[in-house]
Amino acid sequence: MATINVAGPNVQFTETEINSQYVYQNSEVTRNADGSITVTPTEQKLRFKTGRKPAKTGVMLVGWGGNNGSTLTAGILANKHKYSWRTRRGVQEANYFGSITQASTLRIGQTKSLEEVNVPLSSVVPMVHPNDLVLGGWDCSGLALGDAMRRAQVLEVTLQDLVYEEMQTLKPLPAIFDLAFVAENQEGRADNVIPGDKKAAVAKVREDIRNFKAANGLDTVVVLWTANTERFCLVTEGVHDTADNILKAVENSEEELSPSSCYAVAAILEGCSYINGAPQNTNVPGIVELARRHKVFVGGDDFKSGQTKMKSALVEFFVGAGIKPECIASYNHLGNNDGKNLNAPKQFRSKEITKSNVVDDMVASNDILFPAGTPKPDHCIVIKYLPYVGDSKRALDEYTFSIFLGGEQTVVMHNTCQDSLLATPLILDLVILTELMQRVSIAENDGEFQQMDTVLSILSYLLKAPMVPAGTPVVNALNRQKQAIENILRALVGLPAENNMLLEYRIPALRH
Amino acid sequence: MATINVAGPNVQFTETEINSQYVYQNSEVTRNADGSITVTPTEQKLRFKTGRKPAKTGVMLVGWGGNNGSTLTAGILANKHKYSWRTRRGVQEANYFGSITQASTLRIGQTKSLEEVNVPLSSVVPMVHPNDLVLGGWDCSGLALGDAMRRAQVLEVTLQDLVYEEMQTLKPLPAIFDLAFVAENQEGRADNVIPGDKKAAVAKVREDIRNFKAANGLDTVVVLWTANTERFCLVTEGVHDTADNILKAVENSEEELSPSSCYAVAAILEGCSYINGAPQNTNVPGIVELARRHKVFVGGDDFKSGQTKMKSALVEFFVGAGIKPECIASYNHLGNNDGKNLNAPKQFRSKEITKSNVVDDMVASNDILFPAGTPKPDHCIVIKYLPYVGDSKRALDEYTFSIFLGGEQTVVMHNTCQDSLLATPLILDLVILTELMQRVSIAENDGEFQQMDTVLSILSYLLKAPMVPAGTPVVNALNRQKQAIENILRALVGLPAENNMLLEYRIPALRH
Amino acid sequence: MATINVAGPNVQFTETEINSQYVYQNSEVTRNADGSITVTPTEQKLRFKTGRKPAKTGVMLVGWGGNNGSTLTAGILANKHKYSWRTRRGVQEANYFGSITQASTLRIGQTKSLEEVNVPLSSVVPMVHPNDLVLGGWDCSGLALGDAMRRAQVLEVTLQDLVYEEMQTLKPLPAIFDLAFVAENQEGRADNVIPGDKKAAVAKVREDIRNFKAANGLDTVVVLWTANTERFCLVTEGVHDTADNILKAVENSEEELSPSSCYAVAAILEGCSYINGAPQNTNVPGIVELARRHKVFVGGDDFKSGQTKMKSALVEFFVGAGIKPECIASYNHLGNNDGKNLNAPKQFRSKEITKSNVVDDMVASNDILFPAGTPKPDHCIVIKYLPYVGDSKRALDEYTFSIFLGGEQTVVMHNTCQDSLLATPLILDLVILTELMQRVSIAENDGEFQQMDTVLSILSYLLKAPMVPAGTPVVNALNRQKQAIENILRALVGLPAENNMLLEYRIPALRH
Amino acid sequence: MATINVAGPNVQFTETEINSQYVYQNSEVTRNADGSITVTPTEQKLRFKTGRKPAKTGVMLVGWGGNNGSTLTAGILANKHKYSWRTRRGVQEANYFGSITQASTLRIGQTKSLEEVNVPLSSVVPMVHPNDLVLGGWDCSGLALGDAMRRAQVLEVTLQDLVYEEMQTLKPLPAIFDLAFVAENQEGRADNVIPGDKKAAVAKVREDIRNFKAANGLDTVVVLWTANTERFCLVTEGVHDTADNILKAVENSEEELSPSSCYAVAAILEGCSYINGAPQNTNVPGIVELARRHKVFVGGDDFKSGQTKMKSALVEFFVGAGIKPECIASYNHLGNNDGKNLNAPKQFRSKEITKSNVVDDMVASNDILFPAGTPKPDHCIVIKYLPYVGDSKRALDEYTFSIFLGGEQTVVMHNTCQDSLLATPLILDLVILTELMQRVSIAENDGEFQQMDTVLSILSYLLKAPMVPAGTPVVNALNRQKQAIENILRALVGLPAENNMLLEYRIPALRH
Repeated sequence: MATINVAGPNVQFTETEINSQYVYQNSEVTRNADGSITVTPTEQKLRFKTGRKPAKTGVMLVGWGGNNGSTLTAGILANKHKYSWRTRRGVQEANYFGSITQASTLRIGQTKSLEEVNVPLSSVVPMVHPNDLVLGGWDCSGLALGDAMRRAQVLEVTLQDLVYEEMQTLKPLPAIFDLAFVAENQEGRADNVIPGDKKAAVAKVREDIRNFKAANGLDTVVVLWTANTERFCLVTEGVHDTADNILKAVENSEEELSPSSCYAVAAILEGCSYINGAPQNTNVPGIVELARRHKVFVGGDDFKSGQTKMKSALVEFFVGAGIKPECIASYNHLGNNDGKNLNAPKQFRSKEITKSNVVDDMVASNDILFPAGTPKPDHCIVIKYLPYVGDSKRALDEYTFSIFLGGEQTVVMHNTCQDSLLATPLILDLVILTELMQRVSIAENDGEFQQMDTVLSILSYLLKAPMVPAGTPVVNALNRQKQAIENILRALVGLPAENNMLLEYRIPALRH
Repeated sequence: MATINVAGPNVQFTETEINSQYVYQNSEVTRNADGSITVTPTEQKLRFKTGRKPAKTGVMLVGWGGNNGSTLTAGILANKHKYSWRTRRGVQEANYFGSITQASTLRIGQTKSLEEVNVPLSSVVPMVHPNDLVLGGWDCSGLALGDAMRRAQVLEVTLQDLVYEEMQTLKPLPAIFDLAFVAENQEGRADNVIPGDKKAAVAKVREDIRNFKAANGLDTVVVLWTANTERFCLVTEGVHDTADNILKAVENSEEELSPSSCYAVAAILEGCSYINGAPQNTNVPGIVELARRHKVFVGGDDFKSGQTKMKSALVEFFVGAGIKPECIASYNHLGNNDGKNLNAPKQFRSKEITKSNVVDDMVASNDILFPAGTPKPDHCIVIKYLPYVGDSKRALDEYTFSIFLGGEQTVVMHNTCQDSLLATPLILDLVILTELMQRVSIAENDGEFQQMDTVLSILSYLLKAPMVPAGTPVVNALNRQKQAIENILRALVGLPAENNMLLEYRIPALRH
Repeated sequence: MATINVAGPNVQFTETEINSQYVYQNSEVTRNADGSITVTPTEQKLRFKTGRKPAKTGVMLVGWGGNNGSTLTAGILANKHKYSWRTRRGVQEANYFGSITQASTLRIGQTKSLEEVNVPLSSVVPMVHPNDLVLGGWDCSGLALGDAMRRAQVLEVTLQDLVYEEMQTLKPLPAIFDLAFVAENQEGRADNVIPGDKKAAVAKVREDIRNFKAANGLDTVVVLWTANTERFCLVTEGVHDTADNILKAVENSEEELSPSSCYAVAAILEGCSYINGAPQNTNVPGIVELARRHKVFVGGDDFKSGQTKMKSALVEFFVGAGIKPECIASYNHLGNNDGKNLNAPKQFRSKEITKSNVVDDMVASNDILFPAGTPKPDHCIVIKYLPYVGDSKRALDEYTFSIFLGGEQTVVMHNTCQDSLLATPLILDLVILTELMQRVSIAENDGEFQQMDTVLSILSYLLKAPMVPAGTPVVNALNRQKQAIENILRALVGLPAENNMLLEYRIPALRH
Repeated sequence: MATINVAGPNVQFTETEINSQYVYQNSEVTRNADGSITVTPTEQKLRFKTGRKPAKTGVMLVGWGGNNGSTLTAGILANKHKYSWRTRRGVQEANYFGSITQASTLRIGQTKSLEEVNVPLSSVVPMVHPNDLVLGGWDCSGLALGDAMRRAQVLEVTLQDLVYEEMQTLKPLPAIFDLAFVAENQEGRADNVIPGDKKAAVAKVREDIRNFKAANGLDTVVVLWTANTERFCLVTEGVHDTADNILKAVENSEEELSPSSCYAVAAILEGCSYINGAPQNTNVPGIVELARRHKVFVGGDDFKSGQTKMKSALVEFFVGAGIKPECIASYNHLGNNDGKNLNAPKQFRSKEITKSNVVDDMVASNDILFPAGTPKPDHCIVIKYLPYVGDSKRALDEYTFSIFLGGEQTVVMHNTCQDSLLATPLILDLVILTELMQRVSIAENDGEFQQMDTVLSILSYLLKAPMVPAGTPVVNALNRQKQAIENILRALVGLPAENNMLLEYRIPALRH
C-alpha cells in the first residue's frame, strides 16, 4: 500500500505528532423578524494535533463469547495468520471487508492529469491495525471461545477448524448478569456470573480491566458492549442524573442500575472509553458526566449494520431527490441469541425505539415534502425470532414514496445480512476511531488544545441511534456521517474538506 | 417560502448580478518514483458572477407528444392553475415532487443555538420557475397534446380531464424521422414528419426554433431530446469528428448523421443549449466543438430516474462501507412506447451501454476491494417490453456482496417506478440548471470571466451516462454528483462548501 | 355460454329436481398390531337430489357499510347495469373476477378427439346469479352506502360516480356494537347502534331479518359477518356450550356473549344460514347445536383471500414435491379500517390464531419430511396498521425449505392484494354455495334424504380457518378443498370425480 | 416405515405380480349443433398387472461429470453409507428430499375414526430404491467424478471429503461432442470425446451400454440426458421423420442429427428407455417411432425444478381461483456451466421455447378469463449467465393479475434455487417411475395386456415441456400432473382414485 505524504505549509510532521493548521468554514444562520433568514459564512482558525504512534490497544468486550465476540476473535486470528480455507465455492482468504478503516478508501485528490486518486482511509493518519488489538472480555456463558464460535454457527467449519484450538485457550471472565434487564430465556446460558451485588461487581470489573491491561502491557483499553440488548432502564433523578449520583447508585447497588451502566462506570473509572453496541440507554446523563470528568469517551448506541444502515442511506437519497417517503414497513427476523433475547417485549422495545427515529432528521430537513404540521411517514419496525435462520438475519422492507403529481414509487427489498459478519467489522472501526480520537486534540487560534467532546459523535456512521453531545442535533443521514469522518481525517493532515465541486474538470481554464 | 439573504464580505448583490469571491480548495496528488504519493493542498481565488434575472425560457422537446412530453405539459398546467383532482385515495394537488430544484432542500447552515437550517435548493440563487417555462417541440406523431396525454396513460383521468382542452390546442411540429435509427415498430406512429433530406430538415428545425422564440418573446430556448432511443451512430472520421465536418455532413445529408444530431446542430446554430435525454451518442465530438464555437451548452446522456439512480446510490454506499459488490443483476420491464422501441436489439444496445458503466468509477475508487487485476463485478442489464404494465416500469435487481471472511450479503429489490412521472421532473431540473449556468460566469483572480465548459457536467446527477469534458473523469457516484450541484450553488453566493464536519457540535469550546 | 346436458343412466332431470345415483368410492385404513396398515377400498351407493330453481336470495351483511360491504354492493350494481368506466389505463368493464362460481371453470371431460372441455363452474348445476342477490344489512356507522363506498377508497372514482346515487338510497340498519369486543379505536365510527341490552338486540335483529325478507319477497336469507374482527370470546360451560345455554345467555344478556354470536343466534332462529367472514370464534358449540336444531348451516371462519391462500397453495405444492418447509415468516400491513381494528392486541390475536394453523395438516401429512417428534416449521405472522397503504394490503413472505443433502431453497414474496377486491368475490361464492347446499340432499341406498352437516365444510376453500363438523379433520390444502367442491358438483349431476389419470391419452388402445 | 397391505376383491398379490381390477371412470363430451354440449359418464373395466420385483437397474447419464451427474453420484453414496457431515449450521444427514418417490406421501384413506392416513408414495407399489441404482455414463470432460464434484461447487466441502475418494474411482466414458449443437464456450471442457463420425459414435455408445449392463449384471438400463442444452435441430423430412430415416441418418452420419439423438438411437437399439432432461428436441418423430418399435419408453423434455415448477403451480392456483394472469416476467441468472452454455443465443432459444408454453393449457382452460380472441398473458423469459452465483440459481418473477372490477394483484417473487440440488432428485424419480412403468401392463376387459404408450407422459410432473403421445393434449397444471401419478399408483393396487369429497366428514349419516 502506497505511503501518503502530505505537503504544504499547513501540516508539520514531528517524530511524535502531526500538527495541522486548518481554516474551518461554516455558515451561521439568523432568523429575521420578517421571516427571512440571513446566512453568514464563518471561518475559524484551528490547530489539530495528532499523536503519530497508535497506542497498544486492548479491547474488552462485554459478551465476548457471543456471536460478535467470537467472530471478531476468529476473524482477527484468521487475518493475523493469513489463513485461507476451503469452501464450497473455492478457497477463501481472510479479509476485513465491511470495516471502513480497513476496506474503504477516500478520494485524496487528483493528479495534474486529472486522474482521481483514492487511498485507504487508514492511510491518512496512523491508526491501530486490527491484527494488533488484544482481545478480552466477559461473558455470562463460560464457554471457551472455540466452543463459543462453534455455538455461534457463523463461520465456515473449515475456518472454525483453523482457529479452534487457539481460541479454546481464551476464556471469558465472569459477567454481571441481571435477569431484570434481559429476557428470561437467557437464564439457561448464564453459568459464568459475578456473584454479589452491583457494588462488588463494579469493583470486580475494574480489577479485571486493570489485570488485563497489566497482563498484556497495554497503553489503553476500550470497553465495548456487544452483549444482549437490555430493557431500557428507568432514568431517575437522584440515581442516573449526575456523576455523583451514579457513583452513589453503585455504592447502593441500586436496583435500576443496569449491568451495562455498571460496566460503563467501571470502564470510565479505569480511564477507558466505553462504547455501547446495543440499543439500551446505558449512557445516562450521570455516566456522561462521569466520563467527562475522567476525560474518556462514550459512544453509542447499537451497531448499525443492516436494515437501518440501508434505510438511512436510501431515505437520504430519496429525500435529497425531492421524493417523499410516505410509508416504511420494516420487518426482520433472525434466529441467533440476539433474536431470542429480543423476542421478549421489553428488550424488543429498546430496539424498536432505537430503530424508529432514523429518518427523523431527513424528514425534518425538507419542508417542501413535509411542510410544518404534516405527519411523518408511516413507519413500523418488527423483529421476530425464527430460530431456523440462525445468524443469517433477514430484513424485508417496503418503502412507498409520493412522486410527481400524486404518482407512487414502491421499493420492496429483501436483504440477507449475515448479522455477526456485518457487525463485527463495525466493532473494529469503533475501537480504531476511538483510539485515534484519544490521540487527537484541537485548539482554536492560540487557545488550549482539547479533545473532542466526551460523547464521541464522530462514531455516528457506525451506530443506529447515535449519541451526540447534549443540545446538538442527531444526524442519521449516512453520507453526512461518512463525510464527517473523512473530512476530519483530512483536516488532521491539513487537507481541505472534499467539496466535490471538481471545478478543474468543469472549467478548463482553471487547470494549470 | 423564506427569503435567504447571504451576508458577509464575500458576496455583493447588485441590481442585476450576484458577485462572489471564493477560495476554491482542492488537493493535488503527485505519484513519486518510490511508489508513494504526495498530496498538496491547493487554493484558487475565484470570482463568480451570476445574473439575477432568469431568462424568459422556452423548452423545445424532441418527442413532445410522447409520455414525458405530454406529462410535463400537463404537470406544468396543473401546477400553474393550482389544480387538484379526485383520486381513489382522496384529493390530490399538483406538485413538483421528484425535481431537485423544486422539491429538495440543502442545509444552509446552523443557528447560534445549533439548530440546522435547510432551505429550498431553488432559494439559493434565482432560478426559472417551471410554471414560467414555455413549452413547444416536435413529434413524429401529430396528435395534439391532449390526445397524446390520453394515449400515454400516465395520469389519473380526473387530472386528464382538467387539462385536456387546453392541451388540445397544443400541436407538435413535424419531426425528423429516420427508420434507420429507431425500431421498425415505430413506423406506424410516424404521421407528422419533416419531408426531404437532412439538410432541409436542419433548416426547418432552425426555422421552427426561430419562430417559437419570436412568437413567445423568449430570451432563450433549451432544446431537449425526450424522443425514442436511437441506435448508436457509427462515429466516423471526416463526418462526426469536427465542427466543420458535421456541418458538411448536414450539407451532404449524410446517411450516418442521426436525427438527434440534426436537432443538436440546429439548436446550436440557433444559439440554444442541447440536452440529450436518451442514451444514444448524439453529441459526437464535432457537435461538441460546434457547441463550443457557438458558446452554448450540451448535456447528456439519458435521464437517470429509476433503477440506475438507485444503483449508483447503493453501490456508492456499499463500496464506501468497505463491502464488495460481486454480482449485479438488473432486470426491467415496461410497456410504454419507450419499451416498444427498446425491444429492438440495436436500440436496446444503446441503452445497455449507457446503463453498464454506472458502477465503474466506484469500483475503480477502491483497490482494497478491487485490487488491480481483479475482475469488475458481474453485471447484467435486461429490458423487456411487456405492454400490460404500460408506463409503470418495474425494476428487479439482485445485488450480491462479499462481506467479512467470505460472508455474503444479498439484496433483492423490486422497484415500481412510474416511468414518466419520475423522468419528467428531471427535464425541469435539466432546463432550469442549464438556464442558470447560462447566467453564471467564473474568473480566476483578476482573469477574465468565462462560462462553464460546453459539456455541462454539473447535470451529471440527472443523467445515466453523464457527458463530461474530454479528458476528465466521469463521476457516477450519486452523492458526489449532488454535492457538486449544491456546493457550486453555495459558491455563487459566497458560501463555503458543506463539509459536514459539524465541529461546533463535537467540540463545545468552538461554540461562540 | 354453452348449456351443459348430462346424459347417461345416473342422472334424471325433472322439472324441479336433479336426481343422481352415485357410487362413492373411498379407502378405509386399519392399523394392525404389527405396525402395518391395511387399506380396503370402499363403495357407497348414494343418491343426490338438487332443487333446480335457485331461491330468491337475500344477503344481510353485518358490516354492510365497510369496505367489503360497499364494494360488494357497488360491484353488483356495476355488473347488473353492465357499467364500464374510464381509468388511466383504458376503459374497464364490470366483472366478477376472483369468484370461483363466476370466473372459474372445471374440466368436464374430453371429446372423442381427446380435446379437453372446460365449462364454467356455475354451469354444472343451477346457482343463484350474483346480479339477482338482494343486499341489506347492518353497520355501526350510519353512512349511506354511497358515502361508505367513497370512504372505503377502494374503487376508481369513475366507477364510484356511476353507482353513487343509487347507493346513497341504501342505508345500513343500526348494528349491535360492544367495545368489549372490538378495538377502542372503533368507537368514533359507531353512530348507528342498536340501543339496549343483548336480549333486545337479538330481538331487533330478528325483526330486521323478517322485515327484509318480507319487503323483498325473498325465499331465503343468508347472514354473513364482514364486520370488524372481534376478540375471541372466552368459551364457558353453562354459557356457550349448548343451544339451550346460548338461548339462556341471550335471555340474560350475558356479558361474554359476543355481538357476532348474537347475530348468529338471531339468524338461526329466523331460519337463516350464518357465515363468519372474520376470525373470531362466533360459532361456539351452543350455536352449532342451535343451527343443527333449526336445520340451517353455519360456516367460517375468516375470508381466505391473500397471503394465507397463497400459503396454503404453496406449502401444499412444496410438501407434495418432497421439499421440507423449515421457516415461514409472514408479514402484512394494511391501512383500512380492518387494519386499524387489528392494531389492537386482542383483535390481532384472533387473526393470528386463525392464520397460524394453515400448514398443520400438510405438515402432518408427510412424516418423511416431518418424522414424529420433529418440530413443525418456524412460523410467524405479523399484521401492522400503516394507514398510507389503505385497502391495498401488502403481504411479505419468506419461505425457507430444506432440499436435497441439506441444501436450501428460499422463496421471498411480495404480494400486493387489494384487500376488499379480493375478499368481496368470496362473499358471493360463500352465499351462492350455501344457497345451493340448501337445495341439495343426499341419501344412502334407499335411506332417507338429508342435508349436509350443519357445519358446512365445503366452504373451506374460501375460509382461512375452516370450520368442520366436530371430530373430523380440517383440510387446509387448497387443491384438496377445490377438488371437494368440484367433485361434489359433478356428483350432483351423476358425473364421476375427476381423477386426472387421462388413460385414454396415455394408452392408445383405450381410445374407442 | 409401515408396510401397506391392500385388501378387497379388486387386487391379488402373487409371488411375482400384483393384479388389480379397476373401473376407470371418465366423461365424454359431445358438442351439439345448437352450441350446447352433452356430457356422458363413461366406465371402462381395466386390469393392471405390475411386476413385484424391481429390476436391477442401471442409469447411464449423458453428462455424468456435470453438476447434476456428480451431485447425483455423491448423493447416492452419502445415502448408501448413511453419511453425515458438519456444516456451519450443525450436522447434516444424507436424505432424498425433493424426490417425490422418496420424500412425498399420499393420502391412502382414513381410519374408522376419520383420521387421515398418509403413506410414502414409494410404499404403494414396489419401486427401485435409489441406493440400489448403478450409475455410469459419458462426459466430454474426462475428469474423474471426485474432481468433477469439486468443480461443480455444489456440495459442502465436508460432504465432498467423505465421498471424494470413492468418486475418484469413477470415470466417465468419452462422449459424443459436436460444437454445431452446443455453445462454443464449451470447447475448452471437451477433452474426452468419441472420435470419428456419428455412425461410429452410435456404435460406440451401444457398446458402452452393453458393457455397462454386463459388467454390473443389470436387468435394465435407463439412459438419461443431463448434459448441456443443445440448440434445436432442424427437423427435416427424410431425416428425422421415421424410424427408418433416423437409422439411415445414423448410417450417413447426417450433419443435422444431434448428439442427443444419437444417444437416444443407441439407447433404444439396446432396449433402453431414454429420457431427455434438457430442452432440445431430441425425441423427433423418427426416434419416437423407433422406440415404439423397440418397446421402450422415451420421456422429456427438461427437468422442471425451480421457476417453471413454481409457475405452473401458481398459475393453476390463480386461474382456478377465477383470477386472470395478465403479465408474467420471469428472469433467471445462474453461474454454472449450464448457464455458460445457455449464454449462447441458439441454446438459450431451446430453453426459451421450453419455458414459454407452460401456462398455455391453463389459460386455454378458462374462457371466462380468456374469452376466445383475447390475447394470452404477456410473458417474457430471460436467462443470464452471472458466474459469481455459481450453481445457486436465482429466479425473479413478477406476476400481475386482474381481479374484481379492474383491480390488480401483483406478486413478486425471488427464488433462490440450488440448481443441481433441485434437479438431481428429479433424475431419481424419472428413472424410478420409468423402471416401474416397465413392469406395468394394462388390459381392457379380457383384452391383451400392453404397456403405456412409448411416450411416457406420466413423467410430466417432472418435466418442463412434457412430451405426450401425438394428438393428445399437454397438461402443465402441476396438481393435475401429480394426481395422475398418484391415482395411477392407486389403481395398480386396486384402490380408487382420490376424489377429496370426504363425504364421511361432511355427512354424519354416511359414517358407519
